[in-house]
Amino acid sequence: MSTQLPTKLAVDQWHSKIKDTNNLLSKIADEQLLLEVSPGRNTGTYILGHLVAVHDRMLPLLNLGERIHPELDEIYLENPDKAKPQTLTGADLRDLWNKINAELATQFITLTEQEWLQRHTAVSEEAFEKEPHRNRLNVLLNRTNHLSYHQGQLALLKI
Amino acid sequence: MSTQLPTKLAVDQWHSKIKDTNNLLSKIADEQLLLEVSPGRNTGTYILGHLVAVHDRMLPLLNLGERIHPELDEIYLENPDKAKPQTLTGADLRDLWNKINAELATQFITLTEQEWLQRHTAVSEEAFEKEPHRNRLNVLLNRTNHLSYHQGQLALLKI
Repeated sequence: MSTQLPTKLAVDQWHSKIKDTNNLLSKIADEQLLLEVSPGRNTGTYILGHLVAVHDRMLPLLNLGERIHPELDEIYLENPDKAKPQTLTGADLRDLWNKINAELATQFITLTEQEWLQRHTAVSEEAFEKEPHRNRLNVLLNRTNHLSYHQGQLALLKI
Repeated sequence: MSTQLPTKLAVDQWHSKIKDTNNLLSKIADEQLLLEVSPGRNTGTYILGHLVAVHDRMLPLLNLGERIHPELDEIYLENPDKAKPQTLTGADLRDLWNKINAELATQFITLTEQEWLQRHTAVSEEAFEKEPHRNRLNVLLNRTNHLSYHQGQLALLKI
C-alpha cells in the first residue's frame, strides 16, 4: 500500500469531482457554454478555460513536470472574461481539459504517501521546515474545492 | 498530536472553506440573498438554508449528536426552491448557519485520528468492514466540496 487511507480519500475525492464535472459537461452543449452563468458574470467557456489553466499549473506546482499550455494564462487567469478574445472553442477546451486531467491522473498514480507530503514548489525548503502543511496533498485538497466551486457555477448552464 | 498530517489538512480545509463562505456572506446583504443566483435558479436564501440543513445532518451522520434543526429539511432539502414558503429571513439563516458550524467545530476538536476513520452512521458495521473508506473523514471531504460548490453560486450575488 503506497498511500495511507486519509491520503487515498483525498486523491479519490479529486477523481470523483473530476468525474462529476465531466458528467456535467456532457450535459452542456457548446452553445450553452458560450453563455454567462448569470447576467454580467463569467461565461462557461471562460470558467472551463480557467479550470484548464489552473490544472495545467498544478504540474510544476506539484513538481510533476513542465506546463503543457502556459499560453492559456493570459486569457483565463491574468485577465477577466471578455478582456481578451477567446480563440478556443468549447470543443477545444474540452479536449485540453481531458488531456491535462489525464496527465495529472497518470502522475498521481505514482505518488507514495511520503511524496504527497513533500513540499510544493511555491514554498522554499526553509519555509517548509516550519510549515510542513504546505505540501502537495494540501494543493490537491485546495484544487479539488476550487473545481467544486466552479462546477457549482457551470451547473447553472445546464438546461 | 491527536491527528496525523493528512487528516489535519482535511479538517483545516473544512475550516478554511467555512471562513471563505462567511467572508463572502458578509459582503452579501439580506436583500441580495433573496435574489436568484441566475434567472430561474435557486435563491441565495434557499442555498444558505440548504447548507444549514446539510451541515445540521452531519451531527447524526458523524455520530456526534442529535440534529438541532430537523424542521429545515422540508423546505431546503426535500423540496425545490419556491415549492414551500420560506419562513426564515436571511438574518435567521445566518444565525443558524453560525450556530451549527460552531457546534461542528466544537465537536471536531475532540476527534482523534482513529475516530475520524470510524464509520459514519449511514453505513452498517458489516458493510464498513469491506469498505473502510466510508468513514467520517470521507464525509468531511465530501461536505467541504459541497460547500465550495454552493459558495461558487452564492458568489454570483455579490455586487
